[in-house]
Amino acid sequence: LRGKKSADYVNTGEWSKKAIKEAKRYCSVNVAASSEDRNFTYAPQQAAWKLDPDAAYVHVCTNETIGGVEFNWVPDTGSVPLVADMSSHILSRPVEVAKYALIYAGAQKNIGPAGLTIVIVREDLIGQTLPITPTVLDYKAQAEADSMLNTPATYGIYIAGLVFQWLKKIGGLKKIAEMNRAKAGLLYDFLDQTEFYYSPVDKADRSLMNVPFRLRNEQLNDDFLKQAKARGMVELKGHRAVGGMRASIYNAMPIEGVKALVEFMREFQAKHG
Amino acid sequence: LRGKKSADYVNTGEWSKKAIKEAKRYCSVNVAASSEDRNFTYAPQQAAWKLDPDAAYVHVCTNETIGGVEFNWVPDTGSVPLVADMSSHILSRPVEVAKYALIYAGAQKNIGPAGLTIVIVREDLIGQTLPITPTVLDYKAQAEADSMLNTPATYGIYIAGLVFQWLKKIGGLKKIAEMNRAKAGLLYDFLDQTEFYYSPVDKADRSLMNVPFRLRNEQLNDDFLKQAKARGMVELKGHRAVGGMRASIYNAMPIEGVKALVEFMREFQAKHG
Repeated sequence: LRGKKSADYVNTGEWSKKAIKEAKRYCSVNVAASSEDRNFTYAPQQAAWKLDPDAAYVHVCTNETIGGVEFNWVPDTGSVPLVADMSSHILSRPVEVAKYALIYAGAQKNIGPAGLTIVIVREDLIGQTLPITPTVLDYKAQAEADSMLNTPATYGIYIAGLVFQWLKKIGGLKKIAEMNRAKAGLLYDFLDQTEFYYSPVDKADRSLMNVPFRLRNEQLNDDFLKQAKARGMVELKGHRAVGGMRASIYNAMPIEGVKALVEFMREFQAKHG
Repeated sequence: LRGKKSADYVNTGEWSKKAIKEAKRYCSVNVAASSEDRNFTYAPQQAAWKLDPDAAYVHVCTNETIGGVEFNWVPDTGSVPLVADMSSHILSRPVEVAKYALIYAGAQKNIGPAGLTIVIVREDLIGQTLPITPTVLDYKAQAEADSMLNTPATYGIYIAGLVFQWLKKIGGLKKIAEMNRAKAGLLYDFLDQTEFYYSPVDKADRSLMNVPFRLRNEQLNDDFLKQAKARGMVELKGHRAVGGMRASIYNAMPIEGVKALVEFMREFQAKHG
């Protein structure tokens, strides 16, 4: 907060809401923009944001895992630091890191095993903790100890290293972005040409990682999940906060997995449509 | 703290000192007892403790990893909650858990991979956080979410489960305690019958897990470490805070490892003694 009293938050869904709730312990929160009016199915355009020039920072969740809404552009917050929760799409495509003051992400989607968290923070922003900040959450203390203030999650770091090597070997983030666009494109194209299913998210703001979709006839939901499971396709049920279905197609999901899903969806439609 | 202003800490070495430093952010700290007078080579007897009956809690580090000092008895703090950092000897022997108000321990010694922390806390003590306590550090929030408030360190938990199964299979904590006493006994008995090496720690307070020892002729230290390494015995150098040597013989170290160390130490002594 650096002595400031409030922070700006853009509310695009469940993870934004959690971040807002936590921030309210420490400062007043100005919700600069929200897509709650249409059930979090889009990312509010920058022109509609009501930014406070005195805000300590602007917080965005650049990929809402549950709602499947992704920022495909970088917000411009001027001299106010831009903070982003990139947990569910970090490493899915190149990111202009220098445009962010702070990026944070759990490892468990595209980096490595759960239990590891990555923070990329601008050096001029560290070292200004509150007197009661636990040392383990003090970025300066962590930076000075090379992120080994306490014994870190060594196995997670080891696996993350192997993942980084794999990404470099296949052609880096540019290549994985192509692969992810091809994967997500298959599914979204299918959803857009059928009346049986639909994507609730605005085309411009659709996530490459998390693809929520719905059956027009929701009474078929249980049948859909049961038959998918029989084909070895699990965890397709949407989060209880939004319902419907969700396919999470992180870096580790090969295009064959998406093809198999689309094929199954086509057959299910033929039987029940 | 539950509205109280101070806490009692027993200072038996490096990890006690770290805990005291961190506690000072939140309350005034009364060092109820300290073994600093003899360079942290013993655990102060309870009769010498100056406990404050109004303390929020009494904190002890029941095994000092660096100094090799272990509490082989449970302090009696009356109605004041007893809090223990058991990081480096949890699961090494049976513990009367009910005598502690809160036990915490990093997993990386006897439980599983680094990156996982275990807290055992009395239910009446949770739910009394400060308004600015980060939710992730709120034991009540964690308990209500079955310790899965955020995605936890899943791989670490899986491995911990395998370790628990292994411990049960070999005969539980009673059996591992026997094994640990046999292992440590070998090394301490050897140290006590030679003039070439010595243990700096009082006999009653010696750790079963971490055995610091010294060569009377410290000029031989480098040679000792080099020759040990040539035999495949590494990480024997004592922590820079205390110098000398340290053998950490956690649950995972078989007695054969301790035998090999003693054999090497005997030969080294024969050559240089």
